[in-house]
Amino acid sequence: MTTTSPEAVAGTIQDDPEALAAQIEQQMSDTIELLGRWRDSAGKKWGQVGLGSRPAIVVIDLARFWTQPEYAAYCPGAENTVAAVNDLLGHARSAGVPVVFTTQAYQSTARGLVSATGMARKFPGSGDLALGSRGTELDPALEVQEGEHLIVKTQSSAFAHTYLATVLHDAGVDTVILTGVVTSGCVRATAADSLANGFRTIVVPEAVADHLPGAHQWTLFDISTKIGDVVPLADVNDYLDRVGASTDS
Amino acid sequence: MTTTSPEAVAGTIQDDPEALAAQIEQQMSDTIELLGRWRDSAGKKWGQVGLGSRPAIVVIDLARFWTQPEYAAYCPGAENTVAAVNDLLGHARSAGVPVVFTTQAYQSTARGLVSATGMARKFPGSGDLALGSRGTELDPALEVQEGEHLIVKTQSSAFAHTYLATVLHDAGVDTVILTGVVTSGCVRATAADSLANGFRTIVVPEAVADHLPGAHQWTLFDISTKIGDVVPLADVNDYLDRVGASTDS
Amino acid sequence: MTTTSPEAVAGTIQDDPEALAAQIEQQMSDTIELLGRWRDSAGKKWGQVGLGSRPAIVVIDLARFWTQPEYAAYCPGAENTVAAVNDLLGHARSAGVPVVFTTQAYQSTARGLVSATGMARKFPGSGDLALGSRGTELDPALEVQEGEHLIVKTQSSAFAHTYLATVLHDAGVDTVILTGVVTSGCVRATAADSLANGFRTIVVPEAVADHLPGAHQWTLFDISTKIGDVVPLADVNDYLDRVGASTDS
Amino acid sequence: MTTTSPEAVAGTIQDDPEALAAQIEQQMSDTIELLGRWRDSAGKKWGQVGLGSRPAIVVIDLARFWTQPEYAAYCPGAENTVAAVNDLLGHARSAGVPVVFTTQAYQSTARGLVSATGMARKFPGSGDLALGSRGTELDPALEVQEGEHLIVKTQSSAFAHTYLATVLHDAGVDTVILTGVVTSGCVRATAADSLANGFRTIVVPEAVADHLPGAHQWTLFDISTKIGDVVPLADVNDYLDRVGASTDS
Repeated sequence: MTTTSPEAVAGTIQDDPEALAAQIEQQMSDTIELLGRWRDSAGKKWGQVGLGSRPAIVVIDLARFWTQPEYAAYCPGAENTVAAVNDLLGHARSAGVPVVFTTQAYQSTARGLVSATGMARKFPGSGDLALGSRGTELDPALEVQEGEHLIVKTQSSAFAHTYLATVLHDAGVDTVILTGVVTSGCVRATAADSLANGFRTIVVPEAVADHLPGAHQWTLFDISTKIGDVVPLADVNDYLDRVGASTDS
Repeated sequence: MTTTSPEAVAGTIQDDPEALAAQIEQQMSDTIELLGRWRDSAGKKWGQVGLGSRPAIVVIDLARFWTQPEYAAYCPGAENTVAAVNDLLGHARSAGVPVVFTTQAYQSTARGLVSATGMARKFPGSGDLALGSRGTELDPALEVQEGEHLIVKTQSSAFAHTYLATVLHDAGVDTVILTGVVTSGCVRATAADSLANGFRTIVVPEAVADHLPGAHQWTLFDISTKIGDVVPLADVNDYLDRVGASTDS
Repeated sequence: MTTTSPEAVAGTIQDDPEALAAQIEQQMSDTIELLGRWRDSAGKKWGQVGLGSRPAIVVIDLARFWTQPEYAAYCPGAENTVAAVNDLLGHARSAGVPVVFTTQAYQSTARGLVSATGMARKFPGSGDLALGSRGTELDPALEVQEGEHLIVKTQSSAFAHTYLATVLHDAGVDTVILTGVVTSGCVRATAADSLANGFRTIVVPEAVADHLPGAHQWTLFDISTKIGDVVPLADVNDYLDRVGASTDS
Repeated sequence: MTTTSPEAVAGTIQDDPEALAAQIEQQMSDTIELLGRWRDSAGKKWGQVGLGSRPAIVVIDLARFWTQPEYAAYCPGAENTVAAVNDLLGHARSAGVPVVFTTQAYQSTARGLVSATGMARKFPGSGDLALGSRGTELDPALEVQEGEHLIVKTQSSAFAHTYLATVLHDAGVDTVILTGVVTSGCVRATAADSLANGFRTIVVPEAVADHLPGAHQWTLFDISTKIGDVVPLADVNDYLDRVGASTDS
């Protein structure tokens, strides 16, 4: 017992969650590369929804519960996500493009009404998201301007049981640019509903994040096959600048 | 000019809005009585939805904008409505029946997102309902308890773009008891959506009010023909007491 | 004359449903005239939603169950309603304006799923509206063209649990022109949801009908106070012609 | 062997889509195993929604377009999926549990209304899903009984713009058992909305299928982390038998 067997060493190394996460990310990257080759060899292709003429920015759940390490749903690297969103928001505001933020918060009563409904069963941390509690506050580093909409949602999708679809349609919006957290959860659910509500749906990879290893990569790939387009931040910023220029003239 | 013609006197009397309102109410009352005779003579009848076993109380928009005389949408007699609702809430809480309050409030931005959407065009007073403004606060006389849900809605129906249907279904509710204001507006719209979402829908006449002469009477009659049952406060209180007794045992 | 008192004669006359209906309509007409005077004397006014630039026509439930005398929900004068709708549809098609028809039909199973949900309790005739049954067929006199949408709905509102809002928004529609039956039921419910979904909502009085005396008149008045504009057929036809002209150029 | 390098051989093998698919599935299987170890080492756990007392079965899109090889969205092995669903349906019917089938179909007109809305842009095959066309018919091997609901949907989620939530709630259903195709598309979207509508959501792995390599495995894992429970067919059948026994007694 004074010596350490190779199995035990391997076990120790592999059971370090950070090392495991890195290994998972690498494998997922390899898998997605293979999927590109599969797509080409099988003659598959997926449509592009393209960028419309009247975009809006939707920023999902960049609240403390997801952006700060002391909370259960913290997404590693969230500060970079917030920075990318702030960059994009600058271009959006210059272009006069509307912005909607969301946070998630629950009400519940002793007499059995729980606004989290099913989430309360599946999502152990949902107890920390009481309406008005600190975890539901937008991250202080996120640049929010006076008068921008904040929608308090209760489900993964920002469209579920909210007025988001109506307010966007009413403003003539045809393209929803999605940012925030988490990629495989609220962002994906919002993307699916954005498609279902008829919007061209764009996800900005630098501006979304996840806490489940592999989930960010897979979800972006999966969204690109069936829901919308994954467009890099720099390209979205250029697009917003063009929208602003055409609106000015 | 020293004498006043009978026509001018009549004109003056009839152009007094309170006198006109009283006349309208009387005519509407007569009309509804005739409709009862028409129904019987024409062999019509309307179904009764009946009272289920798991009720919830929904209190629509008993906020200052509708309950206090200084606001545009004040409903005359709102203090009696609030008192009737408080009476009913007492029975509901004793019975362990869940309660949901609503208010109406809007967000809007310079960049074109207006959460009132169509309401902003039709409803001149909607500018007084900014989120967080005084008019959107629940009437101080309304007895609200810690932990009871407050849903902020943007449309007439409390079900429109909110989680109300989901939270009620999740709690097993089968019967929605509607109270609040205004009978022909938000109450009727909520009643219609309550039916559409599969709930037995009950409106309590003493606990709803309107500001348009004749509209309260007509709407209650109309609801009874096609949406739900209009059940007096005393009967609803008795029902809630029975529900409480059966839950206790 | 010695045996029949005037009261008994009057009673006999009034218990004729057609005579009663005529009396009710007259009283309702008088009441609405008084309401106009009340509005002016009380200094009230209601907003106009106005006509937008991209209309669509929605034709509610002009199916046999409502248009033919052998069915329970027959609306007297439905043939005139259908003729008015056909007139309007001609202008709409010339202008390239999209058209959506609805009918109402239910599925149900022995194992407890009833797509009518609450309607089945309130609406005695709903048993005649099985999916595929004759009562649910559009009236043969209604001019439907190949390729025009038919939405089968289960609730009063054509927006409830259907894709109507999404398909209209996707096509850039900003104005919903409502026709069909019945004014106080499915038309009013659809109008309310049309407002809630952000559309300018227009009801054409000649193109809607009801089977409840007084309900048609009251509902049009009521809609004009809180939901949308009531615009005569001739004016809507002129508007559609202008839309067509501007699209052509 | 003198002329073909190992790399070229490998390249040839890997560019065979079936071989690539097998490799992808293997890598995904390995990745998910690593994720289990990551979960344990990182101290994460995910809640179980559990099985309720009133289930319903929802069978998503087992129509020719997905079950037969001549169509673009064919899922390899769909015949096994159909067989598993038939097995489960037998237990459901014996237990008196309601069943809902869906198919996907579109209407469109020359005047710009397209019920596919956003799907038409992203999903190249959607042109083959015209309402009434052969691809939208349920697979002939699927055992459908007289009187069971068929919902025609236009979006991925069976809840989107349909009456599914209302009809299930109206019947007192608390648990949705999901089957059909495709796992990462319509099944996942329906699962997310099932959670959002407050239902305990169960996916049966043998009874769902996908056409994108790796997507079935990943999606089941992902659902188990945030939406619902993945429960094997045999266990679901046992559960349905218990539900039936308790209903009988």
